[in-house]
Amino acid sequence: MARREVSVLFFLALLCKAIAIRSQPSTIDASFCLSWRLAVETNNELPWRTVPNKCSQYVEDYLIHGQYERDLELIMEQALDYVNGISIVGDGKDAWILDVDDTCISNIYYYKSKNYGCDPYDPAAFRAWAMRGWCTAVPPILKLFNKLIDNEFKVILLTGRDKEILGQVTIDNLHNQGFIGYERLIMRTNIYKGQSAVTYKSNIRKNLEDEGYRIWGNVGDQWSDLQGYSFGNRTFKLPNPMYFVP
Amino acid sequence: MARREVSVLFFLALLCKAIAIRSQPSTIDASFCLSWRLAVETNNELPWRTVPNKCSQYVEDYLIHGQYERDLELIMEQALDYVNGISIVGDGKDAWILDVDDTCISNIYYYKSKNYGCDPYDPAAFRAWAMRGWCTAVPPILKLFNKLIDNEFKVILLTGRDKEILGQVTIDNLHNQGFIGYERLIMRTNIYKGQSAVTYKSNIRKNLEDEGYRIWGNVGDQWSDLQGYSFGNRTFKLPNPMYFVP
Repeated sequence: MARREVSVLFFLALLCKAIAIRSQPSTIDASFCLSWRLAVETNNELPWRTVPNKCSQYVEDYLIHGQYERDLELIMEQALDYVNGISIVGDGKDAWILDVDDTCISNIYYYKSKNYGCDPYDPAAFRAWAMRGWCTAVPPILKLFNKLIDNEFKVILLTGRDKEILGQVTIDNLHNQGFIGYERLIMRTNIYKGQSAVTYKSNIRKNLEDEGYRIWGNVGDQWSDLQGYSFGNRTFKLPNPMYFVP
Repeated sequence: MARREVSVLFFLALLCKAIAIRSQPSTIDASFCLSWRLAVETNNELPWRTVPNKCSQYVEDYLIHGQYERDLELIMEQALDYVNGISIVGDGKDAWILDVDDTCISNIYYYKSKNYGCDPYDPAAFRAWAMRGWCTAVPPILKLFNKLIDNEFKVILLTGRDKEILGQVTIDNLHNQGFIGYERLIMRTNIYKGQSAVTYKSNIRKNLEDEGYRIWGNVGDQWSDLQGYSFGNRTFKLPNPMYFVP
């Protein structure tokens, strides 16, 4: 073979190796970030403040390139199966609880500007973002929401967002994203300020039970949506590798 | 370029593509199985009886090729950090609870013969396997175990294994795998037969608390090790994509 062809083959072999490396599933970082994501989602890593810097690209890929959506879809399939198996009492007290941020509507666009959670939490910037009302619906959860409304459940949206500051914009944002027909939107008022999400949300759910509601299901992206007490007959933990709410 | 060289290049291009496909991270099945594993580990998929057939190879790869071990190591790093931050009271009542199967000692070798959980649960075959006493230590958990002993915690092993049938072999198996110096091995006796793991283990832990034990930590591969009541100050969920214990 001529020298020129040998060079071409050598170049091709290099290219080939480069492609193989690029498409390998487990570089050391990807493997670490996958372990980290599992630890976070199973509530083992606790509390955590920021995404490890070396996982910024991993978290972006996860959120943007389909795996996050497939994870949500599989969980919502489970939720829909469960909904289909419930015989409601029908007295207007059959309830589901849904969290708002990164459950019904997404903050991924905002977190992109914060390195997908590698930058520390920035309450002022987050408030400014939420004030715009630009959050987009999370499609698989909107589908569950509509199914619940169709099946005559009372859907109660329960969020740690401050009612005074974010009340109207949250109502508008939910409405313009298709969340229409819910029973109540419960936001944090002054008397709950300073409480952890677990305490605040448990308190609210207990009050709902005292009003006679049966909480059939409870959906949130944070374990603090689903722990404490009165957390409902079944809980669904959605993935969120961007931030942790205690 | 001569026809022969063109053929060589064409063959190389094909080979190159084949390598790239083989090492691609996300075929449809791998992506589904990753979603399924997340759903299982976050207790969203519930209850589940067998691993989906199309995930048999995925689960084998996960368990055998390093990711499972890295997942365990990261969780145990968290646990060790937590241990190092505890000031024990030192009255002999500072306790940790560890599950046995697929927490301290591994059944992966057995589950290999059951298609890594794709085949249905087979109580007789599992009992025959356990009777051999061939389970191997799970290294990151043995490391935690030894650290707990060194730090003068009382380590209590709590398992759903039947005491009458598997008592002696379990003691021997734990011993030959290096689990030496624990406070108690609590196994299921007749009065707990028929109870779910959540009920049985909660009962036992409550009894331990009534004896004065403070449960600082609780480690298990099943959510039923960590839920119910008296579950301890902090829980650590280890991965197990092979089977589900209600």
